[in-house]
Amino acid sequence: MTQTHTELCYLTIRETGQLLKRRELSPVELTRAFLDRIEAVDSKLQAYITVLPQRAMATARAAEAEMLRGEYRGPLHGIPIALKDLYDTRGIRTTASSRVLADRIPREDATTTARLEAAGSILLGKLAMHEFALGGPDPTCGFPLARNPWNPAHIPGGSSSGSGAAVAAGLCLGSLGSCTGGSIRGPAAYCSMVGLKPTYGRVSRYGVVPLSWSLDHCGPMTWTVEDTALMLQAIAGHDPKDPTSSRAPVPDYSAVLKEDITGVTIGVPRHFFWADDPRIDREILATVDTALQALAELGAQVEEVTIPTLRYAGAAQPAIMLSEAFAYHQRLLRSKPEEFGDMVRARFRIGGLLSSADYVQAQRIRNVLKRDFAQVLQKVDVIVSPTMSSPAPAFATIDGMTTARRPSFTGPYNMTGMPAISVPCGFTAAGLPVGLQIAGKPFDESTVLRVAYTYQQHARWFEKRPQVWGVQQNKKEETP
Amino acid sequence: MTQTHTELCYLTIRETGQLLKRRELSPVELTRAFLDRIEAVDSKLQAYITVLPQRAMATARAAEAEMLRGEYRGPLHGIPIALKDLYDTRGIRTTASSRVLADRIPREDATTTARLEAAGSILLGKLAMHEFALGGPDPTCGFPLARNPWNPAHIPGGSSSGSGAAVAAGLCLGSLGSCTGGSIRGPAAYCSMVGLKPTYGRVSRYGVVPLSWSLDHCGPMTWTVEDTALMLQAIAGHDPKDPTSSRAPVPDYSAVLKEDITGVTIGVPRHFFWADDPRIDREILATVDTALQALAELGAQVEEVTIPTLRYAGAAQPAIMLSEAFAYHQRLLRSKPEEFGDMVRARFRIGGLLSSADYVQAQRIRNVLKRDFAQVLQKVDVIVSPTMSSPAPAFATIDGMTTARRPSFTGPYNMTGMPAISVPCGFTAAGLPVGLQIAGKPFDESTVLRVAYTYQQHARWFEKRPQVWGVQQNKKEETP
Repeated sequence: MTQTHTELCYLTIRETGQLLKRRELSPVELTRAFLDRIEAVDSKLQAYITVLPQRAMATARAAEAEMLRGEYRGPLHGIPIALKDLYDTRGIRTTASSRVLADRIPREDATTTARLEAAGSILLGKLAMHEFALGGPDPTCGFPLARNPWNPAHIPGGSSSGSGAAVAAGLCLGSLGSCTGGSIRGPAAYCSMVGLKPTYGRVSRYGVVPLSWSLDHCGPMTWTVEDTALMLQAIAGHDPKDPTSSRAPVPDYSAVLKEDITGVTIGVPRHFFWADDPRIDREILATVDTALQALAELGAQVEEVTIPTLRYAGAAQPAIMLSEAFAYHQRLLRSKPEEFGDMVRARFRIGGLLSSADYVQAQRIRNVLKRDFAQVLQKVDVIVSPTMSSPAPAFATIDGMTTARRPSFTGPYNMTGMPAISVPCGFTAAGLPVGLQIAGKPFDESTVLRVAYTYQQHARWFEKRPQVWGVQQNKKEETP
Repeated sequence: MTQTHTELCYLTIRETGQLLKRRELSPVELTRAFLDRIEAVDSKLQAYITVLPQRAMATARAAEAEMLRGEYRGPLHGIPIALKDLYDTRGIRTTASSRVLADRIPREDATTTARLEAAGSILLGKLAMHEFALGGPDPTCGFPLARNPWNPAHIPGGSSSGSGAAVAAGLCLGSLGSCTGGSIRGPAAYCSMVGLKPTYGRVSRYGVVPLSWSLDHCGPMTWTVEDTALMLQAIAGHDPKDPTSSRAPVPDYSAVLKEDITGVTIGVPRHFFWADDPRIDREILATVDTALQALAELGAQVEEVTIPTLRYAGAAQPAIMLSEAFAYHQRLLRSKPEEFGDMVRARFRIGGLLSSADYVQAQRIRNVLKRDFAQVLQKVDVIVSPTMSSPAPAFATIDGMTTARRPSFTGPYNMTGMPAISVPCGFTAAGLPVGLQIAGKPFDESTVLRVAYTYQQHARWFEKRPQVWGVQQNKKEETP
């Protein structure tokens, strides 16, 4: 072993897995490095709600014993990960970052939790998030707010704030986030991570605290596309416990990661991010344009597409989300309103003011939106746009409704259920990450991953790591 | 030709089609017979809103000319039919039995209208219905109320009231109804007709005035299962104009009509029609039990099944229906409330009082109901129950909300989208028809039709015809 602790924590899952498989690294040593780093750094970053040092070390020792017996479970065996604190973990508090659930200890694992455990991964802890996966960072929710490792004065994005911050800061090798309108892709873009919202029905939601049952998705966040593919492989596939779970077969996602997008057609809905739209950041547009040029040079056919109904998606998505959230939370909102944070309580109550006709109209828009996208996807393989309309805002500028005034490029894919990934595509002059969103056909995660992988291997933004409070972590520069 | 006019009008589509194909009957003579009978009888029955004598005769002459040239389009060529007055007909008033649409003349045919025309059928006219396909017979809607040919003091069922009454009285050979909670199967049961609600997505709804977009279905009503199969064949299949239309292939429905149900498994949800439920008519239960015995003797395996969520379906179906109806009608309800009949206006307004959370909860029940049925359908091929909980009530006993106090055996299949048929299974002591409901797996109309056909061929209730105002029409007795 020649790596320092910091170097260990900034390897990818793939690299770490190879070291573990070759027995050049012990899962015990690896887990210790992560726990040490969490102890050193997380009090400033606040990515974790719960750290599980004893449980993690016990799992690591068991993994080591298995490996010494030659029992190798696969590429996640011995890999330290962490979960957004709405994934149920048997015997471990699961709060959804809300006082409402502050003392809740599930008796059963979420299906995804159990599958990652079965794959041999090591659970380091439970990650910070926006309360009930809604809205922005709310100091009144009763839980700490995660900070952005690239600049702690800025938010890491949400609602999977800790899931983005923890991986970006080297506090775990991969995490699961959840997404109702962009809560995986948003923090991925803000933290220079890869974040995938798989197709609706691809990954079980059993045992995950719901926000909106028709829009919620579960998915991984990692440094690289390969790592996302590895985590997706472990959690994808039918779950009889989730009535929305699909029986569609699960391909080998690692096998599709070829650096080849010759002939792939990319649709760009320019009308959705006009260069003269004052709500969209100039640097974001320039960065995404550079990425689109790169994709064309890599062999893709880039063409403009039009999705007329997109203009209504921004109104329909929150109507559906807040109606479903209110339906779920209405009893507690009436009986214990004081246990909710101010921001979530206010937004949930908007859901309570919506009529059934409002919801029906929103669902009708959703149906037409699905049809629009289905038509466009007969002509192109993927659709590319910025992930976010701005870089991560500073905490000081957040008033709880900021993002609502900007267009959402992520929300439409929660409405349509299409798979969509955010992959790093550069930085602003101020050093804040920018993400590129690639969306594809339902259950065609393979093409989405392949386009993202080819771009990633060309652009190599994953080699740039944040300096977390004076610790030098730029991997490129560290290479001897 | 040896048939009297009355005999002609009481043949089946299959029988008539064979006479036409063999040129033993002219479509002109046939159409004239139906128009004469409508003129003689319909002023008492009020099954038609609009009769089209000139158009029908012109179509009949064109069909005759084609046939004389040897151009035979198929089993519906030259067959006189009629449509519920919510199927758009180009250039012909389509009212949905509402003053709101009293002067509406569509510029385009519904897809089903066009397909039946392409199959060579002859449109006799547009049929009475409950206003906007909702609720019961409402004297304030501004349109006449169809009567039951088996007893004109009783309703023919609804909302496809004219579609049931017209076929039963020999005023057309087949009709289309529409169904949001039982509006095809209900009048079929009350009029001793066969009525099929196909799978959601099987038959296009383009150009059909909507009541509730997620529950509405279109389907045929005829004397026999063969005739229903013939009409279904003509209208089934993908329609790009209807975003909910399925691309699932359409089998040959006539080919599956074999008198053989050996080994078919029939599930009976007894818990849904307990013999001691005071809301369910005793004679209905006895009649359905006899039919179930017959099915067992014909070779089917009859077993009890449990669908726990059925108990909530009765609350969820109206919440969805009325919310979606209000969403569609809210502007006119606000601007021109006086144009709606009292019953529909009151019910639509209930939809306006429902919250989005109510609707969401109803949809969640719907999802669990779908899962329950899917599980049961892994064990059984079809599910059998009474169609209605009572025989057709007398007009004098209708207060507009009567049916709401009885359990609906039909509504759950609008929620799940499963195909469901009503087939005649006998009569009460007072001479009112009873229907047997057979529901099957999504897109498995074939099995539903086969079970219904086998039962029909055994029980032969289709041979009994109503006496319409003194005209002797019992076919069995008329046979020389």
